[in-house]
Amino acid sequence: MTAALFRTEHDLLGDREVPVAAYYGVHTLRAVENFPITGTPISIYPELIKALAAIKQAAAQANHELGLLDKARCDAIVGACQELIAGKLHDQFVVDVIQGGAGTSTNMNANEVIANRALELLGHQKGEYQHLHPNEHVNIGQSTNDVYPSALKVATWFGIVGLVDAMAVLRRAFEAKADEFAHIIKMGRTQLQDAVPMTLGQEFSTYAVMLGEDEARLREAAMLICEINLGATAIGTGITAHPSYAPVVLRRLREITGIPLETAPNLIEATQDCGSFVQLSGVLKRVAVKLSKTCNDLRLLSSGPRAGLGEINLPPMQAGSSIMPGKVNPVIPEVVNQIAFEVIGNDVTVSFAAEAGQLQLNAFEPIIAHSLFKSISHLRNGCLTLAERCVSGITANADRLRATVENSIGVVTALNPYIGYANATAVAQEAHATGGSVYEIVLRKGLLSKEELDRILRPETLTQPVPLDLHGKSFVR
Amino acid sequence: MTAALFRTEHDLLGDREVPVAAYYGVHTLRAVENFPITGTPISIYPELIKALAAIKQAAAQANHELGLLDKARCDAIVGACQELIAGKLHDQFVVDVIQGGAGTSTNMNANEVIANRALELLGHQKGEYQHLHPNEHVNIGQSTNDVYPSALKVATWFGIVGLVDAMAVLRRAFEAKADEFAHIIKMGRTQLQDAVPMTLGQEFSTYAVMLGEDEARLREAAMLICEINLGATAIGTGITAHPSYAPVVLRRLREITGIPLETAPNLIEATQDCGSFVQLSGVLKRVAVKLSKTCNDLRLLSSGPRAGLGEINLPPMQAGSSIMPGKVNPVIPEVVNQIAFEVIGNDVTVSFAAEAGQLQLNAFEPIIAHSLFKSISHLRNGCLTLAERCVSGITANADRLRATVENSIGVVTALNPYIGYANATAVAQEAHATGGSVYEIVLRKGLLSKEELDRILRPETLTQPVPLDLHGKSFVR
Amino acid sequence: MTAALFRTEHDLLGDREVPVAAYYGVHTLRAVENFPITGTPISIYPELIKALAAIKQAAAQANHELGLLDKARCDAIVGACQELIAGKLHDQFVVDVIQGGAGTSTNMNANEVIANRALELLGHQKGEYQHLHPNEHVNIGQSTNDVYPSALKVATWFGIVGLVDAMAVLRRAFEAKADEFAHIIKMGRTQLQDAVPMTLGQEFSTYAVMLGEDEARLREAAMLICEINLGATAIGTGITAHPSYAPVVLRRLREITGIPLETAPNLIEATQDCGSFVQLSGVLKRVAVKLSKTCNDLRLLSSGPRAGLGEINLPPMQAGSSIMPGKVNPVIPEVVNQIAFEVIGNDVTVSFAAEAGQLQLNAFEPIIAHSLFKSISHLRNGCLTLAERCVSGITANADRLRATVENSIGVVTALNPYIGYANATAVAQEAHATGGSVYEIVLRKGLLSKEELDRILRPETLTQPVPLDLHGKSFVR
Amino acid sequence: MTAALFRTEHDLLGDREVPVAAYYGVHTLRAVENFPITGTPISIYPELIKALAAIKQAAAQANHELGLLDKARCDAIVGACQELIAGKLHDQFVVDVIQGGAGTSTNMNANEVIANRALELLGHQKGEYQHLHPNEHVNIGQSTNDVYPSALKVATWFGIVGLVDAMAVLRRAFEAKADEFAHIIKMGRTQLQDAVPMTLGQEFSTYAVMLGEDEARLREAAMLICEINLGATAIGTGITAHPSYAPVVLRRLREITGIPLETAPNLIEATQDCGSFVQLSGVLKRVAVKLSKTCNDLRLLSSGPRAGLGEINLPPMQAGSSIMPGKVNPVIPEVVNQIAFEVIGNDVTVSFAAEAGQLQLNAFEPIIAHSLFKSISHLRNGCLTLAERCVSGITANADRLRATVENSIGVVTALNPYIGYANATAVAQEAHATGGSVYEIVLRKGLLSKEELDRILRPETLTQPVPLDLHGKSFVR
Repeated sequence: MTAALFRTEHDLLGDREVPVAAYYGVHTLRAVENFPITGTPISIYPELIKALAAIKQAAAQANHELGLLDKARCDAIVGACQELIAGKLHDQFVVDVIQGGAGTSTNMNANEVIANRALELLGHQKGEYQHLHPNEHVNIGQSTNDVYPSALKVATWFGIVGLVDAMAVLRRAFEAKADEFAHIIKMGRTQLQDAVPMTLGQEFSTYAVMLGEDEARLREAAMLICEINLGATAIGTGITAHPSYAPVVLRRLREITGIPLETAPNLIEATQDCGSFVQLSGVLKRVAVKLSKTCNDLRLLSSGPRAGLGEINLPPMQAGSSIMPGKVNPVIPEVVNQIAFEVIGNDVTVSFAAEAGQLQLNAFEPIIAHSLFKSISHLRNGCLTLAERCVSGITANADRLRATVENSIGVVTALNPYIGYANATAVAQEAHATGGSVYEIVLRKGLLSKEELDRILRPETLTQPVPLDLHGKSFVR
Repeated sequence: MTAALFRTEHDLLGDREVPVAAYYGVHTLRAVENFPITGTPISIYPELIKALAAIKQAAAQANHELGLLDKARCDAIVGACQELIAGKLHDQFVVDVIQGGAGTSTNMNANEVIANRALELLGHQKGEYQHLHPNEHVNIGQSTNDVYPSALKVATWFGIVGLVDAMAVLRRAFEAKADEFAHIIKMGRTQLQDAVPMTLGQEFSTYAVMLGEDEARLREAAMLICEINLGATAIGTGITAHPSYAPVVLRRLREITGIPLETAPNLIEATQDCGSFVQLSGVLKRVAVKLSKTCNDLRLLSSGPRAGLGEINLPPMQAGSSIMPGKVNPVIPEVVNQIAFEVIGNDVTVSFAAEAGQLQLNAFEPIIAHSLFKSISHLRNGCLTLAERCVSGITANADRLRATVENSIGVVTALNPYIGYANATAVAQEAHATGGSVYEIVLRKGLLSKEELDRILRPETLTQPVPLDLHGKSFVR
Repeated sequence: MTAALFRTEHDLLGDREVPVAAYYGVHTLRAVENFPITGTPISIYPELIKALAAIKQAAAQANHELGLLDKARCDAIVGACQELIAGKLHDQFVVDVIQGGAGTSTNMNANEVIANRALELLGHQKGEYQHLHPNEHVNIGQSTNDVYPSALKVATWFGIVGLVDAMAVLRRAFEAKADEFAHIIKMGRTQLQDAVPMTLGQEFSTYAVMLGEDEARLREAAMLICEINLGATAIGTGITAHPSYAPVVLRRLREITGIPLETAPNLIEATQDCGSFVQLSGVLKRVAVKLSKTCNDLRLLSSGPRAGLGEINLPPMQAGSSIMPGKVNPVIPEVVNQIAFEVIGNDVTVSFAAEAGQLQLNAFEPIIAHSLFKSISHLRNGCLTLAERCVSGITANADRLRATVENSIGVVTALNPYIGYANATAVAQEAHATGGSVYEIVLRKGLLSKEELDRILRPETLTQPVPLDLHGKSFVR
Repeated sequence: MTAALFRTEHDLLGDREVPVAAYYGVHTLRAVENFPITGTPISIYPELIKALAAIKQAAAQANHELGLLDKARCDAIVGACQELIAGKLHDQFVVDVIQGGAGTSTNMNANEVIANRALELLGHQKGEYQHLHPNEHVNIGQSTNDVYPSALKVATWFGIVGLVDAMAVLRRAFEAKADEFAHIIKMGRTQLQDAVPMTLGQEFSTYAVMLGEDEARLREAAMLICEINLGATAIGTGITAHPSYAPVVLRRLREITGIPLETAPNLIEATQDCGSFVQLSGVLKRVAVKLSKTCNDLRLLSSGPRAGLGEINLPPMQAGSSIMPGKVNPVIPEVVNQIAFEVIGNDVTVSFAAEAGQLQLNAFEPIIAHSLFKSISHLRNGCLTLAERCVSGITANADRLRATVENSIGVVTALNPYIGYANATAVAQEAHATGGSVYEIVLRKGLLSKEELDRILRPETLTQPVPLDLHGKSFVR
């Protein structure tokens, strides 16, 4: 006599054989067959599995508290959920990341895994749903339509926390370089044309400031996703849910997750609404746009080694060419640029999916979730990689940078308040035509004395606003 | 002797004839020639012209206060600016809305118009810049790179105020309908399939709630654009600006505009940063996504008149077909859908332009501005049109709606807590197969008594969470 | 004495330990460390690995033919490549799908795996590059900058072939249904409003026609990617390549792949150009847009079962709800919608990456490749799933459909040529106001006789153009 | 007695006063009131007005030929249409470019203007529709649903012709510069790092080749839009149209327009399909992506004047700064970049609108049309501006360019075939570390003789593939 390889499960469509070892059941099985799209299961997002478990645990506890679930079943469900939160059984979450059904297959995958594990904890066999049922016990007072978006929000919250941490690491790397380069003077550029002087430290500090701002924006977006709709059930009217379920499950879920969650004031609206995901995606796009701009700058400033700007050196990370010996490329900024392009594309996907919602539900949240999870995790990995494998190793070519200032026409701008825009323009034109220096032309034309020029053109007076009566003279307007 | 038709002006590139009647000058003239792109001048955005004037006025007052501009010239500049704020001379703003040069042409267009009008106020002829010069007086302590983005922010603020007001009009139209339809019961739908009952009032209230949330998000985004960079001059180092210029011009501009503006803490970062525009565009996209979803719903619910859902009636606004007699189409929601599609595309344009910034400046702010201004004004017009020409005239087909509930299979969901998910599934399947009613099948199967059924299936218990012991019986789990 | 676990390899940056079992080498190792982004290795795209192997084989054969590579090494390289083409050693392609370096890491991963496998075939140990070197032998006459885009094109070709096949499967499924439903009359709809009659077969045939057109467009786009740049080497000048290399390697690669490849007429342009990828992505987006529209229609037509249009029935594939018993949802069209949204987002990513190319190279082809490969494979899977799990099982509710025609106001359009637009409008208005039928109103008004009406309103005359003198009478204009 | 200011017209919704001077009628009037969105009327697209007139003329001629319209009315309609084609009365096309109703308002605007002008030609007053009616005579055998998309295609065809011409102007400007710069040697760059030598002429020729390819792609896309659906009427079944109408109107329209139009093989599919617009938009996006990349390169190569690459000089078109004297910016490429960003955003709008089509019609073609018309006209203007105001005036800094080659490390790549990749890497590393020249290091190491080096490093051998036995020696592999 041999052990059975399969157990029989039943659903709306009939009977199906499920492998005895599987914690998932017939609903999951059909979903796996129905959605052979990417080959990537939802288990690649551990935070989603943990979020589902946290919600199922909170629901069981709430239903027990409300007298709708007995203690034994509640304990078993809670035990199963805690195993999932600890990282176990994630390989049982086998539904494709791109799936139809508005997340029902993901919710049922969770219901089934939890039910079967809880059955084991109760001393039963997997599949003996007469003792504890995926729908009738694990899913009490719930619907995919409140569980799934709430789980996405819990998972996204933790994702954002990780991303903000990574951005802070990158920000500090830029801050350290800003300090290191605080006294290296260089030409600032607008529209890729030489403009006026600044320090390399000032240039690097802008990247840190940008990141700091984006961290703040992400934190704000995170607060918006704290609004969940547990208790809404099917469409937000709360049908089948105990009137006290919503507040109780909220309290439980706050305890389990530590997230300042709130119940949406209008559950019908909250059930069909993807606004907070669209907003979050927009902020992630903002982060991507800024990061990409930053990486563009790093690649431009490090262009060369001889025929480029050559202002800074990125640490070499790998041989750059299969044909050009000795070539080293800015591979780390390049990979971050590409992450940014992906995130910007994901934002369009999110917009399309959100717009496609109809009436009381948005059936396309799975692709919204997939897009957001990719954007968040790739941005996080990109920030850490950029910090550790690029920014922290950047060095400056200080002599070359100083020479660009000394040799520049742009310093003439500093003379505007003293000689006027029209005179300054004439000086600039002559310098450009003859290749001469602004300093000598101004002196030769007698527009300012050597002492005046030296005072006006000191680096510390060029890189910040200064009193115009610096040297007792100012252009009379 | 005849009056001259042209005056001669001079710039870096040489002399040019400018029409004597023109308040703009040689810089504007060249810009018009250089950018023959859309045929649409910047004057189509009156709020931008007024914002530029407000900044020029504030700058003149600040420079006078700091001793850099005499009273006569200051008064003349202020006088010219106030005329612009009052709506005069806008036809002199002739540069194309899509322009190169990072906004320099727009800034110079303002400098020239203000200088020439101020010259007239001082009793001079237009073009006599020896008395008052576009760059050396109107533009003191300024650069396009701080004036232009600051002007965009001031203009955008007023645009958002108008949009939020229009959204509130639309929101109130939905709220009125939600009240009107509060007692009309209907079937809610998820994934376009019959789900569970709700009221038409609940359905309409969600649109109001969505709008209310989006108004709040827009207000938050507006706060982010209050951070300006006046005082930054060319790249944020404040070169040529008086050290006290930034705080004084801020104070003046707050007085003139009434906007709670702030000076950015890091002016170098603020000068190159487009983050707040990207964020705002993302929020506008969110508004568009929601509005489009709402219009999709309105079109779907009013589909028919006979072969559609036919739940509501939109007011007829025009004959719908050049061939099909009597056909009336949902033309107002359709136009709002299209505005939404435009806004979502504009957001991609903004992302591209923002990402393309390099080093100390983003040269592509003109297309960002054009995209934002279009999105804001079209959304505003769309909201008002939708409110006034559609939502306020919507009527409901209450009998048809009630029939869908009475005839539905979906009400079986309400029986879940009493007969269990498995029994309920069997009832639903039988109803589906036989065309029978849930009510009768449950009675016939003896799953519940008539009294129990009647109590459970009352509309008021179907459209909100209810105590499960409603009738002294609950499914034992 | 124990076997070594590692071998030492050397590159520009120094020595590194590589696991002895690894066929990849130091370049790949560094790349894996540098790009910890998605966790997904390039081996998930087997067609890319095979394309790289095909190119390396063709290059070895060409270089041998040109006297630049001896027979033994050539044979070994060819042997290694053929193993890869047969599907072996793909697990050695471990570089992340999102990577910096313009594909250099992918090319070096191939060079190293092929070199080490070829070394084994020659009787050497992995890593004994003095006998056969990844760069100096496997990569002769090549650069990442010609190998990588060419490999993407070969891989994409095969991807498109698979997609077009899948689209044809879906097209035939729609064609079969169009035949099956050829005689079921129904109301056509424009703007979701009842329009004029058609057959359900006509409706389904449009989906088939759309697919057929898109297949044609994809085949055209495939022809554009047949233009490769092998022989370009670093920037298109062909530096280090034998003057006869380009034609010889082309001939070899055509033999190996069977693809009608051509060498680009301008190799410098071809090396920096991503135009064919952008074009292909645009066509994939077109396919996605159409598929999504088709799925929207299927979901709409099958809405119900009782409160929707209920015109067709999709085969039930899984229980639709964790809370609503008996609910079945259109999960297959929904998953295809989401694939479409992803593809449309990917197109934006491709646009960004293509636009970001600079000077002689586009460094961002890896994300272009990743986006295209995802779009192609997901669309392919979506088409097959839609055909097999949805379309082929669709049934029609013929009685309900016929009733919508008989009950319609829209048939009045057919009377236009006989009674005029103005009369027809009056009839339509009366029908709408009274709920009456067009047939009866026309009769009562004496606008046409019963015989005339019956002839004009026969289904076969309603669903195609008919001679206006059908019954000896026509509206006199 | 005074002349009446208004005439009364009637439609489905009742009576309205129309200004007597207006050629448009009540339908147009209501549409103007219903769509106060952009303030921009459809008359800004003269090719659309002409296309509508061409179709109305062809339809009148066809209907006359088929015996459905008498000669007098036909002649009057044709006369009115020819006036529109000649550019008259365009100011009567007052409907907003963004409009609901699937283009019905545009079609009715045309019907009304043509009817009223035709009435005048017949000696009647405007509004005396009993003699000639907008619907019953001008619109015979037509529906908005076949007229409007067909008009868009005719208009788009002429737009593309103009764009391709402008691209050819730009291409020839690049070709002229490629010839002029044919012998200026410079360093090519990949990933912004110095790569290997090329000529500036080669660099410029790539831009010409890109444009030439894109012209070909646009011509292909234009062929796709030659497929029209006249004869489809409301949904493609041809209801109310004479069975011979489709072929006759096609013949007439081909004569009038000179475009190789074809009738779609399946009119139901063609009526709901936006595929050719999506495809065209994708190709326009491709053009935009390439143009933007080209402009990015021009801006980068002309960066400076002293702290940038400084390889080429763009002609100065206007003063670049309101604060920095003498600064000149790349304003023309910048404006083209922005057009490109707009076009890419428009493509997303088109995708959204196309995907939103439902069942037998896409109601969102007006925004598709608006997006395409903007993209086409702005790209056209951008190409001409770029050609005439930038490319044709570009000069090269030949000495600086030559120096970058002589001073480069990248030339070491040319030595690969002679000294091997490993030796070449060592040379490159020493050059990089010491600042020395490749030439001297190779000589000192004795890797090649002076004669060999001189031959290998001649410009003409560096910028194209050369026989490796050039000097009787080759690296033995």
